[in-house]
Formats: sequence, C-alpha cells, structure tokens
Amino acid sequence: MKVAVVGATGAVGREMTRILEERRFPVERFVPLASARSAGRTVPFAGEDHAVEELSLDALRGVDLVLASAGANVARSFIREIASEGTICIDNSSAFRMDPDVPLVIPHVNPEALANSPSIVAVPNCTTITSMVAVGPLHRAAECRSLVLSSYQSVSGAGWKGTRELGEQIGKLHGDIESLGRPDVDALPIGEVFGKTIAFNVVPKIGEVEPTGFTDEEGKMMAEPRKILSAPDLHVTATSVRVPVVAGHSVSIVAEFARAISVEEARDLLWAAPGVELRDDPANGIYPSPLEAAGLDVALVGRIRQVRGRENGLALFSCADNLRLGAALDAVLIAEHLFTR
Amino acid sequence: MKVAVVGATGAVGREMTRILEERRFPVERFVPLASARSAGRTVPFAGEDHAVEELSLDALRGVDLVLASAGANVARSFIREIASEGTICIDNSSAFRMDPDVPLVIPHVNPEALANSPSIVAVPNCTTITSMVAVGPLHRAAECRSLVLSSYQSVSGAGWKGTRELGEQIGKLHGDIESLGRPDVDALPIGEVFGKTIAFNVVPKIGEVEPTGFTDEEGKMMAEPRKILSAPDLHVTATSVRVPVVAGHSVSIVAEFARAISVEEARDLLWAAPGVELRDDPANGIYPSPLEAAGLDVALVGRIRQVRGRENGLALFSCADNLRLGAALDAVLIAEHLFTR
Repeated sequence: MKVAVVGATGAVGREMTRILEERRFPVERFVPLASARSAGRTVPFAGEDHAVEELSLDALRGVDLVLASAGANVARSFIREIASEGTICIDNSSAFRMDPDVPLVIPHVNPEALANSPSIVAVPNCTTITSMVAVGPLHRAAECRSLVLSSYQSVSGAGWKGTRELGEQIGKLHGDIESLGRPDVDALPIGEVFGKTIAFNVVPKIGEVEPTGFTDEEGKMMAEPRKILSAPDLHVTATSVRVPVVAGHSVSIVAEFARAISVEEARDLLWAAPGVELRDDPANGIYPSPLEAAGLDVALVGRIRQVRGRENGLALFSCADNLRLGAALDAVLIAEHLFTR
Repeated sequence: MKVAVVGATGAVGREMTRILEERRFPVERFVPLASARSAGRTVPFAGEDHAVEELSLDALRGVDLVLASAGANVARSFIREIASEGTICIDNSSAFRMDPDVPLVIPHVNPEALANSPSIVAVPNCTTITSMVAVGPLHRAAECRSLVLSSYQSVSGAGWKGTRELGEQIGKLHGDIESLGRPDVDALPIGEVFGKTIAFNVVPKIGEVEPTGFTDEEGKMMAEPRKILSAPDLHVTATSVRVPVVAGHSVSIVAEFARAISVEEARDLLWAAPGVELRDDPANGIYPSPLEAAGLDVALVGRIRQVRGRENGLALFSCADNLRLGAALDAVLIAEHLFTR
C-alpha cells in the first residue's frame, strides 16, 4: 500500500510514522510530505531515511492512504480533491470534523461511523479524544446528558515549538524559583507560542477567542462529543487550559446521566473499555497523571466519584498522550479499521 | 497590641508577618512561635530579627491577637483555651472551619459574619477563597445554586518543602525535556510531598482520600462555600489538582444561578467587587494566570462566558496568591475588621 503522511516533520506526523512502523501497517511505499519549508529534510521509516517532499496534488496522486496532520487550511486545499480520486484521507485537522458528510471517529468509541466506507474521515481534537474514551462507554450504558470539562493540556499540543518554548523558559526561570512567589511580571519571558509565560504558570486560553467568549479549542471540546456520541442534545461546557507538561493531556470531567450510575458500575464499564486503563485506587497512590500517560496507547482513567447528592452524576479524571492516543494512533486505528474490513 | 504568629517560620506564617508590616498593623509586641524544631531561628519584623519561641500556652498568655497557621491538630491543642482567656484567635487551619460556633470568613465576601465579636475566627481553605471572592458577588446578586470547580493548585500550598521538591525535580528533568514525551516512568523522581512527580506533570490528588472517593481538600472546597455564602443548599462538586506552579492557585468555575445572569452583569459586579481585579478581554491577551496573581492582594478573574443554552449559567476563571489572598492576607483583614470596629 502506498501511504503518504502529510505534515511528516511535525510532532503528530512523526508520531504517525512511528505508529505505522510499530503496528506493522502494510506500507509498501512511504511518502512523507510537508510544507516547502521542511521539504528536503529526511524522516526515518522502516530502517531508512526518506526525503520529505513538498505537499502538492501531484505528489499525492496514486496514493492509497493519506494520514494528514497539517493545518485546517492546508487540509481544505487538497483533501476533497484527492479523496474524489479514490484515495482514503484521514485528517487530523479541524477542517472536516463538523462536516455532516464526514465521519468523526474514535475507533475505540464509535467505530460504527466507519461502516459506509468513507473516503474522508476526521480525527477529533486531542482533548476531545482524552475525554471521550472515558465518557463513551458510560454514555452507551447510561446516556450522558451533560458534561463539564476543564482541561490540563500539554505544550506538545502546540507542536515542537511548544516544547521548545517551555524548555527555554524553564531554563531562564528555574535557577531562582523561590522568586516566582513575587515575580517581576514585566521581566517574565513572553510566550510567543502560548501568549503568556508557560513555565511555572497555567494559561487558561488556547486558540482564538470567539464572539461567545469561548475559545475555538473550547468550541471543539463542546461540539465534537455530540457528533461522536450521536447525542445532539448533549450539553457540554469546556474550559481549556495549557499547563507546563511536555506530553499528556488531562481532563477533569463532571458528567450527568439519564439514570443513576454507581462508581462500581462505571469502574466495570471502564475496566472493559478499549483504549482505557483504569487507575482508580487513589488511597493507594493509583490514579492517573499525564506524565505516566505519555508514550502509552491508552488513556489512564481514575478518580471516579459519585457526585454528592446526585446519583446520576459522576466525576472522573482522564489522561492521554495527546500526540498518540489523542491524534496519531487514532488516525492509524481508523486506517486499520478501513483496510482490514 | 501584642500579636503572636503561630507557625512563624512556615510559608503562610512568613507571609502573615510580612503583611502585618506592609499594612502597618498596630503591633507593639511581636511574638513569633513555631514548633520545637524551628525554635531558636529568627524571623525579621519591623527592621529587627526576632527569635522564634516554641509554641506553648505560656508563650501565648497575655497576647491580644493570635494569627495561627499550624496544622489542625496543633490548632486544636491551644486555640480554645487561649480564646477563653480573651485572646482573639484567627486560625488558618481546618480545625474550626465547619464548627457552627466559629465564623468562617473572607472579609471581602462575608464580613457580616464578624458582627458578634467572635473570639475564634477561621480562615477558609486557600482554594475556597480563590473561588469565593469571584462567586460571592455573583451569589449576592443572583443566588448561586450549583458550582463545578476544578483547581490548578501551586506547590507552595504544601509549604516550603513543596517549592523545594518542584525545584529539585525540575533540576533533574529539564536538561532533556523532549525525552518526557516517552518517559521512563520507573526512573522519574518520586514525589515525597506530592505522591507523584510534580515537575512537568499534574497530580489530581491533594490530601487524603475519604470514603466518598473525594479527597479532604475537595471536601473543603465543597463544604466551605455553603457556610461562607450562608447557602446550605448550594451544590458543589470539586476536583483538586496540583500543578507545577510556584505560587498562585487557579480555579475553573462553572456556576448555575437562580436567575439569568449575563456576562455584562457579571463583569459589572466583579469590577466593583473588593479583592477582585477583573481581567477579561481575552481577545486582547487580558485574562488571569497564576504567575501574574502571585504577590498580589487581589484575585485576577476573567474568561467570563455564558454557558451555552443556559442563561442561568456562567463559566469563569479565578487566580489568587494562595499564601496571601488565600491565607495570610485574609487572616490580617479579619484582624483589621475586628480591631477597627
């Protein structure tokens, strides 16, 4: 099979390539593509270095499968056209996620959305995936009515430059961290990527602010679950926050269901859920954290609590590697579903 | 006035001393007390070094005002007895907070609770204060019915040792932060203070786990608002999370009120609220972050949004210096209220 990775030099693209290798996806020809700026660099795959070409329609002709992780505008510039020529396109951008003709798929949660052999499939936002692998199995059992989500998102969600910015700022500030109790705010390193200093700080704004006051990142966390769960009336309120973590997104979830659901039932459901590793014995130190989820192919889920006085309510905490389970792995799992069916 | 600070060498005690000085509280004699371990050290006050004595009932005899920031058990060992002798005791521990005979006071929010000249006053939990300075004014106007809170709590909330542990772990890990994308979990520094590695991580468990599955920290965030707001039916669900921030706690708040409340009304109320600085123009980079709140005497509040499809619902974000507004300043403001009335 001829497989192209678009955005091959980016953080998610590199992870896609790695996962294709790890899972021995049947790649006969590997075509790494990127923007003009990255063309000419090489990426390793299957023991060889492959030269990265500039993305173009020509470069994509005859490709069987495209795994794309470029911006939404780049995705719009080529995906429909290439898909119309018979190439399967799995896109990690937001370009097609809410398009009614494009399925939005987490194979662990809604594989049935792949039933009609779609030519374009959208991968949800990384924070959406982190929450939905945990909420999905509970929703199937007890019908989720509302969600309040607060995120703790790692810097690698902004790509290599995010990790670099955190590293540089940590280097500047960590020699005298006690002084950060009364910082000279004007002397703090300005964040080019994150808007504010991200080292030793949390930044409660990710993406652009919409007229509603929510950011576009929050908008994704609120809209995508309805489509993934086929629950048009599900009510979601989200707050997206960047934290100084390298990899691994976390979400604090408070969910309300149509019927009573106990902690024990939730644990049983999540114990059996694909893509989830239950870590829920906090009195013995067993609960999720993003640093432990980094590099894994499962979300770590725990801190499951019955909301006080509301037997239909549960609180829980989910952590997942945003580049893998939250993006690249989801794309490769979709490809596996489509090509092994 | 003879003023004792109990826990004078601790992070909150040092801040209490500093704030007494900054606000020119009328201290004639300053008595710093601490555990036997810290006795003999000195702390600076009003241009002089004062020797720290070991806490004892004798050392407290004849003191007019005690500002205490020791553990709950230490507080229980002396506060009732000293208060019965006529000393005003303002306690930052959890020992008396839910005692029906002891007012639980944020002077910016419920100063009326000080009306009956209490001899013991409890200072709320630092995260409770961070959320209540923002929710209090909205509750007075529109009656808050439910709150969902997720916190982002700084390491200084665990005292000097918390800041030290973060600093040490950052020192070990920051040289190769890219490797944290796939960490060797067994080689990560073990957190003695925080249970898990706190550098480049978030730790969603603060304090001890109760039979309900909530931690005692979460229990405080859920119980204290009802007492502070005199709202016994207020429904609160809390998730407490430690983040690698030195100073400044943050809370993501989703509140539901008895009536519709617009973003504009909320902004007007918070603009006028004591102890709050409104920072709410995120499209222009104006929104709160804990690093900017550190060292300040106000909470920074912003990201105010109408919950979609629910005109009674608001989402917002509040950040406050946990040692100052969240603890020491609150105690000194209570003292000012009691002694200037």
